[in-house]
Amino acid sequence: MTQPLPAILAHLDETAPEARARLIDWLRIPSVSAQPAHAADCRRAADWMAAQLAGLGFAAEVKPTAGHPVVLATHPGTGGANAPHLLFYGHYDVQPAEPFDLWTSPPFDPAVVEGPRGPRVVARGAVDDKGQCMTWLEAFRAWHAVAGGPPCRVTVLVEGEEEVGSTSLDAFLAENRDALRADVAVISDTGMWDIDTPALTTSLRGMVYSQIDVRAASRDLHSGMYGGSARNVINLLTQILGDLHDEDGRVRIPGFYDGVRELTNAQRVEWDALGFDEAAYLRAIGLSVPVGEKGRGALERLWARPTADINGIWGGYTGEGGKTVIAAEAHAKLSCRLVPGQDPQKVAEGIRRFVADRLPPDCSAEVQIFSTTPGIEVPADSRWVQAARRALQAEYGKPALLMGCGGSIPVVESLRRILGLDSLLVGFGLEDDQVHSPNEKFEMRCLHQGARSHARLLAEIAGP
Amino acid sequence: MTQPLPAILAHLDETAPEARARLIDWLRIPSVSAQPAHAADCRRAADWMAAQLAGLGFAAEVKPTAGHPVVLATHPGTGGANAPHLLFYGHYDVQPAEPFDLWTSPPFDPAVVEGPRGPRVVARGAVDDKGQCMTWLEAFRAWHAVAGGPPCRVTVLVEGEEEVGSTSLDAFLAENRDALRADVAVISDTGMWDIDTPALTTSLRGMVYSQIDVRAASRDLHSGMYGGSARNVINLLTQILGDLHDEDGRVRIPGFYDGVRELTNAQRVEWDALGFDEAAYLRAIGLSVPVGEKGRGALERLWARPTADINGIWGGYTGEGGKTVIAAEAHAKLSCRLVPGQDPQKVAEGIRRFVADRLPPDCSAEVQIFSTTPGIEVPADSRWVQAARRALQAEYGKPALLMGCGGSIPVVESLRRILGLDSLLVGFGLEDDQVHSPNEKFEMRCLHQGARSHARLLAEIAGP
Repeated sequence: MTQPLPAILAHLDETAPEARARLIDWLRIPSVSAQPAHAADCRRAADWMAAQLAGLGFAAEVKPTAGHPVVLATHPGTGGANAPHLLFYGHYDVQPAEPFDLWTSPPFDPAVVEGPRGPRVVARGAVDDKGQCMTWLEAFRAWHAVAGGPPCRVTVLVEGEEEVGSTSLDAFLAENRDALRADVAVISDTGMWDIDTPALTTSLRGMVYSQIDVRAASRDLHSGMYGGSARNVINLLTQILGDLHDEDGRVRIPGFYDGVRELTNAQRVEWDALGFDEAAYLRAIGLSVPVGEKGRGALERLWARPTADINGIWGGYTGEGGKTVIAAEAHAKLSCRLVPGQDPQKVAEGIRRFVADRLPPDCSAEVQIFSTTPGIEVPADSRWVQAARRALQAEYGKPALLMGCGGSIPVVESLRRILGLDSLLVGFGLEDDQVHSPNEKFEMRCLHQGARSHARLLAEIAGP
Repeated sequence: MTQPLPAILAHLDETAPEARARLIDWLRIPSVSAQPAHAADCRRAADWMAAQLAGLGFAAEVKPTAGHPVVLATHPGTGGANAPHLLFYGHYDVQPAEPFDLWTSPPFDPAVVEGPRGPRVVARGAVDDKGQCMTWLEAFRAWHAVAGGPPCRVTVLVEGEEEVGSTSLDAFLAENRDALRADVAVISDTGMWDIDTPALTTSLRGMVYSQIDVRAASRDLHSGMYGGSARNVINLLTQILGDLHDEDGRVRIPGFYDGVRELTNAQRVEWDALGFDEAAYLRAIGLSVPVGEKGRGALERLWARPTADINGIWGGYTGEGGKTVIAAEAHAKLSCRLVPGQDPQKVAEGIRRFVADRLPPDCSAEVQIFSTTPGIEVPADSRWVQAARRALQAEYGKPALLMGCGGSIPVVESLRRILGLDSLLVGFGLEDDQVHSPNEKFEMRCLHQGARSHARLLAEIAGP
């Protein structure tokens, strides 16, 4: 089965310009799942992917959910009914692009820019996750063109709610259990060690995302008339949230560290050996001093320790100039990154208690929980991981690293819980891709070598 | 000179509906001084007042400043060159009306609503300060109609930057010293004790208004990739501002209480005698427990103690749903109400130090100072105060109270410093007028009795 591979890789080399054009086409669709005004765009982004897959011999559908629709497609492959069966997962939705004024080009009008490592595409979703989805889509295309289809059985699942907590995904997985039968899931939504060094991710942080709404007076007040007598809820909100960390950087949410496991010595040695340069990592974003828990290593803090970050805050007068108002309400978005062992429901309950414990008389606080995902680990020694390491080594000429990841990919936990599937996390993002930030980008070299890696992976998994 | 008074008061009674219509006409102009988009509206509001005064025999002009223009008008009066000379001050600018969705009717489409104390007008600026300006304007109108003009010399000064710190006013006063020559200033921008009980205000709090901008990373970051390593400036801003008060409600800004005088026993006895019902005051705004410095009386906290309130806060993602961002910058508006004895420049410096002292490495903070006004006291025993007390007693049938005021009227300090003038603070606002809040209103009974009071005041000051 590996005989067609040289021709497939050559095909990918020859068609790289068209692959880039296809990615740009998809990136033009502003499929922002968090914003109801973009619901139709989400549907368009799903239709786009389904049409691509249908053109490559897949039976492809866009299936409705309670939220944004899911693309579901299957291909029998050319290897027969006993060939391995892979489930490729991706997401077509993207983060909101705000603040727009910090983008050097419009977020949904992709710009090809020459960078130090060759051309890159700048657009919201360039790497997360449209560009990464294109790595396997282009691999399918090359196998289709050269060999009439992939060498193993393939199912594709592309959802539209990853950036908003994958609200409808669990029900979808449960309802489509038969159609989603496979041997392993393959997900490209993680990063490389650097542009020359491939990586597989074997641990992921989870998340609890919340919004806190604090209210006191029945209306906005004049600070001259009421200052010194009436409760100021913005002052209060800063008092509550300013107490989130102790002096050692530990989170004060009750029960927050319950179940958090210490690193094994083996893990610590392995991660230390990676030689992660936190100073350079921070320098790239204009910082020099790491924060987080005292006495913990850099990768430990990023991959194996939970965190609490306020992602947004607002209240009172925020326009130009001054307004002497005492606001009636104030709001914040607070998210916690979780590690394996923490119970997301208990962390959510801890956030509620943390706020309630600091709430004075006359005030009310609502804590909305938008999403809860546990941190998870995936086995590092399966035949799938072995196959992926061979494919990546062949493409990059050096071994793939096994990494942790500070972010969360909720589907990994759902795939395991509902479908009993492990996930192979092979991604082509880079640290400076500005994920979720203005000027998000994807290196065209990553797109190309990612597609070549997936083409190799299919061959490795199909076997000789 | 008092002979025409009965006819003047009768004229005000007969023309009350027209007075209300004129106020509504002026309120339709959205003269929001803080918002550059409303600059032309500010000019229109100035022109409106100048035209009114010109129609009443005043020599009226709209004079440019570096900011919004000033209305300056004079009338020689009918009492000759030796009659007392009054300088009436008001402001035509209004606070921003945000948040619009909390208004029961559009803020610049005045609604006449029947309330428990008769009709009221609901609009931004209804009481602060357009409605209050109308009280003296209608008094001039009645004197003009019945007696050919006011019985004493009158100069009118109506500025358009009161709500943004009266930035251009000092220069204007200095440049127009001769045109502004008078014996005393009269200002209607304060409140009554209640709708049946008139009041003169003899102490005012000052203000320092600032904006704090905190920055750390060079761009917004993904909390999954950077949480646990990179500084979160929103967390930081809540830590800094959450530290603003100690457990006894005292402000921790360095040097904040320097120069603050303790109440005299006489003051304390007088204010206690007012029988201020703080519980009812708070109940009206949905609260039950006072905040502020422990161990201080209610009126003491409102009139004679300085405060620090965060008037606005913003940063990160504030839209619908969730976005897992670590923001690069966060902002707050912080204002301090000052009392006589505090040096506003030192308080501004204290705010800078308070922030700088709490700023960790890698972070920068800019503290912009928008305005600085000292707290001031006006003499309570002058011939002008005596005349005003007689006028108010005649109108309301009970003595006027001498009160403090928690708000600031920067012009009072400027008039004293630059022109050597004391101010007579006689106002007709009520506690529930929603000053600076949605649904600001002015009682039509206050408009009418305010106009009658000013008509009487002119007679009292002119003398028999």
